[in-house]
Formats: sequence, structure tokens, C-alpha cells
Amino acid sequence: MIETPSLVDQYCHGVLRTELGLGTFEAQLARTEGPPAPGTTLFDTQTGFAVRRWCPPLLGLEPHCPPARYLARRRELGALEATRMLLRGSGITTYLVDTGVPGDLTGPAEMACHGAAGAREIVRLEPLAEQVADTSGTVESFLTNLAEAVQGAAADAVAFTSIAGLRHGLALASEPPGPGEVRGAAARWLADRRVGGVLTDPVLLRHVLWIAVAVGLPLQLHAGLGEPGAHLDRTDPVLLTDFVRATAGLGTDLILLHGYPYHRQAAHLAGVFPHVYADSGAALVRTGARAATVLAEILELAPFGKILFSTGAHRLPELHVVGARLFREALGRVLGTWAAEGAWSLEDAQRVARMIAADNARRVYGLD
Amino acid sequence: MIETPSLVDQYCHGVLRTELGLGTFEAQLARTEGPPAPGTTLFDTQTGFAVRRWCPPLLGLEPHCPPARYLARRRELGALEATRMLLRGSGITTYLVDTGVPGDLTGPAEMACHGAAGAREIVRLEPLAEQVADTSGTVESFLTNLAEAVQGAAADAVAFTSIAGLRHGLALASEPPGPGEVRGAAARWLADRRVGGVLTDPVLLRHVLWIAVAVGLPLQLHAGLGEPGAHLDRTDPVLLTDFVRATAGLGTDLILLHGYPYHRQAAHLAGVFPHVYADSGAALVRTGARAATVLAEILELAPFGKILFSTGAHRLPELHVVGARLFREALGRVLGTWAAEGAWSLEDAQRVARMIAADNARRVYGLD
Amino acid sequence: MIETPSLVDQYCHGVLRTELGLGTFEAQLARTEGPPAPGTTLFDTQTGFAVRRWCPPLLGLEPHCPPARYLARRRELGALEATRMLLRGSGITTYLVDTGVPGDLTGPAEMACHGAAGAREIVRLEPLAEQVADTSGTVESFLTNLAEAVQGAAADAVAFTSIAGLRHGLALASEPPGPGEVRGAAARWLADRRVGGVLTDPVLLRHVLWIAVAVGLPLQLHAGLGEPGAHLDRTDPVLLTDFVRATAGLGTDLILLHGYPYHRQAAHLAGVFPHVYADSGAALVRTGARAATVLAEILELAPFGKILFSTGAHRLPELHVVGARLFREALGRVLGTWAAEGAWSLEDAQRVARMIAADNARRVYGLD
Repeated sequence: MIETPSLVDQYCHGVLRTELGLGTFEAQLARTEGPPAPGTTLFDTQTGFAVRRWCPPLLGLEPHCPPARYLARRRELGALEATRMLLRGSGITTYLVDTGVPGDLTGPAEMACHGAAGAREIVRLEPLAEQVADTSGTVESFLTNLAEAVQGAAADAVAFTSIAGLRHGLALASEPPGPGEVRGAAARWLADRRVGGVLTDPVLLRHVLWIAVAVGLPLQLHAGLGEPGAHLDRTDPVLLTDFVRATAGLGTDLILLHGYPYHRQAAHLAGVFPHVYADSGAALVRTGARAATVLAEILELAPFGKILFSTGAHRLPELHVVGARLFREALGRVLGTWAAEGAWSLEDAQRVARMIAADNARRVYGLD
Repeated sequence: MIETPSLVDQYCHGVLRTELGLGTFEAQLARTEGPPAPGTTLFDTQTGFAVRRWCPPLLGLEPHCPPARYLARRRELGALEATRMLLRGSGITTYLVDTGVPGDLTGPAEMACHGAAGAREIVRLEPLAEQVADTSGTVESFLTNLAEAVQGAAADAVAFTSIAGLRHGLALASEPPGPGEVRGAAARWLADRRVGGVLTDPVLLRHVLWIAVAVGLPLQLHAGLGEPGAHLDRTDPVLLTDFVRATAGLGTDLILLHGYPYHRQAAHLAGVFPHVYADSGAALVRTGARAATVLAEILELAPFGKILFSTGAHRLPELHVVGARLFREALGRVLGTWAAEGAWSLEDAQRVARMIAADNARRVYGLD
Repeated sequence: MIETPSLVDQYCHGVLRTELGLGTFEAQLARTEGPPAPGTTLFDTQTGFAVRRWCPPLLGLEPHCPPARYLARRRELGALEATRMLLRGSGITTYLVDTGVPGDLTGPAEMACHGAAGAREIVRLEPLAEQVADTSGTVESFLTNLAEAVQGAAADAVAFTSIAGLRHGLALASEPPGPGEVRGAAARWLADRRVGGVLTDPVLLRHVLWIAVAVGLPLQLHAGLGEPGAHLDRTDPVLLTDFVRATAGLGTDLILLHGYPYHRQAAHLAGVFPHVYADSGAALVRTGARAATVLAEILELAPFGKILFSTGAHRLPELHVVGARLFREALGRVLGTWAAEGAWSLEDAQRVARMIAADNARRVYGLD
């Protein structure tokens, strides 16, 4: 009843090219600090159960087959062929790929080829700044090169993404830092840092954000659930309120990624501020059988033109599959129920489904 | 099965008297900072869809008809006739009207007349203090007049309401400020201020709250969702814990308005403190098809004698309709399901429905 | 379909031995500051309705009979016989009993005897420290006796429990306090304190926690909903993130009790950190007809090997009954629905049910 023929995954990563053993595969199912507790396995999670539900049939096995059997079949096919079968079975028609995460992962061109889909690049700001620092000899050259690198990246990319919220928390001062402040912070960082050193200085994090705001590409901000290392208490998107207000009217859209468990707050910001959008993404992959409820919570306050689908998938093509299938099923169930009850008209439900699945992303990112 | 013959709307505003075009009507459907984003409309929200579901039939049209058709019918009837048809179709039997918001809105007497219902006034504290400041020449006269104005307002009003949480955040110091502190703050405010200037000083906000507490009328505090301009991170009602404890046993009831997305926290406070009540109101209008779930979340921790129905509607009589209809449907569905499953007895479900719809409000506000 | 033959209640208290009148019984149904508001009763809560649903049939009455009738039947049977009938009807097979709450309550041996079940002791750290202070003459003897008392308690107990979060809030400094700091805090506390004085000093609260961490028994931390007196705004378990990280890899498991309304955050910590577990407990007793939803929210992020059942029941055996029945019904409904929809396999659903009901607790607490 609720059809979504196009599916633009507005935020994901590439996949691993190597063959995976059971332990390596399991480790990708969650983001943890340390190995699973004794007597437990990461397969016993919503993500693990969702992978076992949706992926085995795409490789010719029955749903919910044991992990070892699934991994054996995956190795039998080879990583490349399994990746192709999985991505093509996901239903995703365009991938927007964050290329700034570590590891030997497929880039946008390979994702497009393997998935028989479109693909575009998202540039992650913090690694870009770190690369510039690796190759700049002085504070002045670092700052000049940084501005050029961000502007240059905009030529091919459809968006910037920032993990300032994971590195420092989202309660960043709202105004751009002054030139002297930036120079001081850069001098201290460059003096202390070795090649590969990570950017966590709040002044420089803000400086990079404001360069990106000036460029005008949509800017994705990680909020809520994040990588281990983040303080969950500093990633509530309401902490961004001052920054959001400071960037209103400048012509740059902000997309709040993830959000969960603060997705209702993210949806509220998307309702109040014209330039703010809410992601319906990674939360579904993480919550599995609960995806319909989590999606419905996002649909409470966010205007329907401000919600964007993503998978947030990383490293395993299984996560792209799970993100897309859970989204489609959840969307169909939630909107279909509202239409069946008469709360929404069926025509509205079908139109909103297409907006969230693809049309909103096409408009925000200027995709053809 | 679950009937609520009486419906006391314990918090709403009046409606606009003028004819409305499509754009003006749309702008009332949400509280935003700025116009809708390009390519989006505020009709594509839960509130917009709920208006299209419930209101066209009251004006003789089919549910979910296009906004332009609905507005044309509304103009054909005239604002006055449309208002009468809508309010009388809402099922609300008593309106408690906050008269302290800007704009040319109908007062309690007109709401009663148009809606063929009862109506009483709620006095908003901050605009009252601003009016007193506009007409007081000295600090001493301001403070004397302010105390008299608050006490005088209590003669006709059934409650006070405060937006201190929206102006400053809810983490107010819990004790009343001392006389010298108040005089100093008043002197500074009056010296800086022009006629019509808004009260945001935390000392004076607390001073006004404590005058109201001393009067003894129920005091409504805005929490959670608010007007644009509010910091959502400062409106969690748990921030009120110290103020709540400081006012315990003084004989003045506190009603936490809105609450969402912190409505579970508001319900908890209503459970712990005898003088605290939780509003089931505006959150339903904002979340539309999700109203039953949001209401059920309030019903988790709040004792059933501590929950009060409201619409929180402002400016459009459509919002009174939507608030009342969503509430009745949600209440019937939630309590009816629990009775059908045997979790509650049907008799209890019917009794609790009447309590939340009207009886609790009658007791708290001393209505006949 | 979903069977849980064993039920390990990983956190509860003993029950009152005395006969109870209607008012005394009612007062145990919620944790409030002060008596119920005029015109309201604590029977009109989710807990009150759940007691009336599940307990009368165990004493030979119809479900939902009036409270006065239930209390009359309870007195007719006598407190002892009623306790035996209720506990044996709860389905709980092992009780882990926190013996550190005030009042003349049954201990683990009596719980085992009355309930025809197993029972073990949980030692509450703060009252233990207070008892040591009552009997220690000097700072040095207090600190020596405290360390010995905690280590000694570990001989018979299966876990420690701490209410530092209710006494001070969970934003405790993450590192153990230094020896001089501890001595200074102890000197001040002992000098000011009378016999029976309560421990609220944050340095000493941390000191006691770190002694317990060194002993290595599982350590339960109260978070979220608590006793009156707690600041709900300081009990979000994400505030524990630094303490959790500081204790990683030391071999001591942390169990986050209650959690609600921050149970999604507690579940997230259980997902990220190998040594953290989430309780599914008292929140169900408090939310009654909503128990299935609250349990489902915990099941979003917490790995299934990291969730532990409890009732959190105190003083009334009715609360043990309600906690166990609500849990079993909620678990069967949630997991049964997912299996029926194909989201989970039925075999997985049955296995996960047994894990949460008993197997996880057996592994974490080393029960036979």
C-alpha cells in the first residue's frame, strides 16, 4: 500500500573488502568499548537478530539461520559477490557516503558499482583538518590550507559531516571564534601533535564548522548515539540550540544525524528552525524489531518535509540491507496504520513516504 | 465504551476574529522561527493532518480535503460562523482561557458565547507585571502595584500561569528573593526598559511567582515544548524540583503545562508531590496520530487524580477542535484497550476517563 | 509460547510482618513526599490497579475487587499466611534481597521460607558505612573498620548495592579519592554526626564505591526513579559514563537499577561497556498496564545477555507479585509478537526470555 520505489541513503559508509571470520563479523554489529562480556555475544542484539532476519535470504539461506552457517555461505560466495548481492537486495537507489572514517573501505564509485545505484561523497571535516595539519608546516599555512581544503572539497561533495559532538560534546559556543583565538589554538595543537593526531580542540572544531557553514553545502552534525568514547550526556541535540540560531538565515542547512535517544528533541528542532532537518537513520538499525516505534517518535514533531532516510551503515553491507529493509517495513507499517485508521488520507501517506524515502534528500542535497 | 460527557479545557487561548488567508492560517499550525523551509509546508505536519481530518466535516466538507478548499469554505461561512461551528463541534464544555498573550483574541466571555460553554479566566503573570511597569513611576510604586495587581487578579481568575520557564529556563533558584534583591532588580529593569519591554530578569520572575504562590490560586508553569526562543534544554520540569519542594505544604497547587518531550518527568513529579499536577494537553495537538501513545506515557507515572486535560489551543478554533477530538479518541483507545485486556476494570477505566476529562479540573480550580 | 520457568528477582526488599490497615497499605503503593492530594488516592495509580488485578485471585477473590474488600480478606488470612500465598503465587524462584533499608522487614531466609524459593543477600553500602561510623571512635578506626566491613560482607552476599546516586546524584568524580581527601572528609563527617546520621558526603560515597569495586562482587547502582528526596535531574545514568569507563576492565560488573525514565540511556551503556548491565525491574511495577512498552524500550539497545529481571518490590508481597506477573506477561507479549511477525525466530525468543528471566542473573551473580 505504501510504496517507496526510490531510496536515498543520505548517510552511510563504505564496506570492508576483506573476507570476514565469525569474530570479525560479530565485532561490526555494535560499537562497544571492549569485547563482549563473558557468556554473551553481539549477535544477541536487535542488530544481530535483524541481520539474521533479512540477509540470509539474499544469499540463498533461510531467515534466522545460525551465524556460523551464514558466515560460511558468505565466504563461499566471496566478499565481493556477497557485497554485490546484499547491496543490490537492499533497495537503495542512491548512496551518500561519508569517506572520512578509518579503514580500507569502498568509496562512492565502488558502492555505486556494487550496488547498481547512484553514489555521492560526503566529506568529514575533522579528518580533513587532520590531513591538512599533517602536511602544513606553519600555523599560517595550516589555516590557509584548511580553508582551501574545505572549499575545495565542496566541488565534488554533496555535504559536509562533523563529529564535533562526539569529540567535544554539542554544547559548543555558538559564535565563530575570533582570528586570534583560532591562531592561538592552532599553534598549540600543531606544536603538541604528531602526524595522525586527532582534532579535539573546541576552538578549532568550531572554526572548521564555521568554514563549512560559509561554504553553504548541507552540514550534517552527529548527535545522540555515537561512537564509543562519546559522552552520551553531551550529545543531546538541544545543546545545539544556540549554534542553530546563530546559523539561521545564512543559507546552510543543518542535518541532525542519529539523534536517538534524543530523536524527539531533534525532531523538535527540525520543526522550529527552517534550516534544520532530522535523520531517521541509524537508530532503526540499532533498535531492530522496535524500528517502527522509533520512526513514529520522529514523526511526532518533525515536519514531514524535514525528515531524511539513512542507514548509517558502516563496514558490513548487511547493515545497509538492514537499515533499508527496517526503514521500508517501519514506514509502511506506521503510515499504513494511520491511513487505515483514517487519521491520515492514503494519498497523504503515500506522498509523505516518498518524501522521507527520497524526495526530501534530493531537494536538500541537490541530487538530480 | 469510554464516555467523557464533560470536557474542561484547563488551558487554552482565545481565537482570532479576522478572516484568514491560506498563508496566515498555515503560520498558526506550528511555532517556528521563520517561514517554512523552501519546498515544505506546515500543513505537512501532524497538526496540519489532524486539522484536515477533524475540521472539514464540522464545516460540511469531507475529511482530508485540500487546505485551499477548506479555507475557501471557512471564508464563505465567515470567521464568526466558522468559529461557532468549530467550537460547538469540539465537545468542550468549559474553557479556561489564558488572556495574557498578544493579539486581538476572543476573551473568556466570547469563548463561552461562541462555544455555548462555560469559560473562566487564567491570568498570565509576566504580562501583568509588564503592564504594571508601564504605569508605575517608581520602584516602590511598581512593587506595591504589582502585589496589588496579582492579588486583584485573583478575584475573577481561576488560576495564574507563568512562562518564567520560557523566559529564563526552569532552573530558577527555589527560594523567594529577598526584599533588597527585588528592589535592586526592579530598579535596574525599570531604568533600562521602554514601555512594552518584556520581563526576563530571573529575580523579578521569581518574585512574581512567589507573590502568586502566596495568593493561593493554582499556578500553571509552562514546561517542555514552548514558544520559539525558548531553550528546550532548560525546560525539563525536573529542573523545577527544588522550587516544587520549596512550595510544598503552602496550599498552592502547581500544574506543569505541556511537558513533552519531558512528560514522563512531569508525570513523575505529579506522583511524588501532593501539590503537583500534570497536563495532558498541547502535546496531543502537536503529535496528532501519535496522541494515544503520548497520553499513555503520561499515564505511566502520574496518579490518575493528578492529570488534567487541555488543548493549549491558540488563535485558531481548529486547534481547540483537534485538541479535544484527539484527546477523546486517545483516551478512549488507551483506557478501552486496557479494560478489554483485563489490565483495568471497565468501571475504573470509565471513572478515570471522567476524572481526567473534567472532574480533576473541577476540583483543582474550584469550578462549580 | 514464551515460557520462563525460573525467575530470579535480582533486586528486591523484604516485606512487613505486621497487619496492615487500608491507609498503611495505600502508603506503600508509591514513594511520595507527603500524603495523597485531597480528593485523590494512591490506589488510583498504575501500581494500585496492577495490585488489584493480580493479587485478589491469589487470595481467593475476583480481580479488581475494591481495596477495602481485599484488605479485609488479607486481615482474615493474617499477614503471614497472606504473604506465603502471595509470594508462592508470584512465580519467583530466587530472591536477591537488599537488607539495607530501614524497617522491620523479612530477611533472605524468611523470604526463602515464605516463598518456597531460594534467597541471597545484597548488602547496601551506605547503611553499612553508617553502622561502622556508629561504632568507630576515631577516623583511623572508622576507615579500617569500613574496609573490613565491606570485605567481610562479601563473604555471604552476592552483590553490593549503592544509593550514592540518590544521595548526591550520579555525576560523581570518576576516580577514587586520595587518602588525605578521604581522611579529611571522614574527620568532618564523624565530628558533625550523631548516631544514625546519614552518609551524603560525595568523597566518602566515592570512597565506599571504590572499596566495593576492589572487592569484585557485582555492584548495583540506583539510577533514574528513586526514593523521594532524590533530584531526578541528577539520576540519569549517562552521568555515570566517566565512572563506568574508570572501572572498565577491573573485573567488577556494574548493574544499573531502575533507570526509568532514562532506561534507554541505561540500555545504551549496557551495550557499549562489557561490564555494565541493565535492570528491567521496578519500572514495570510503577507503570503497570504500560509494562510491555517500557520493557520493549529497554530491549532496543541493551544486548540480550545484559538485561536482568527484578521487581524492586519493598514492604508489600503484593509488589513482588505484581513485578513478576507484569514482567512475565510483558515479556511474553513483546517477544511473542516479534516471533509471530517473523522479526525474531521463535527459538531465539524463547532463549532470550530465559536469559532475561534467570540465566543472565545466574551467570552475573554466580548462583548455582
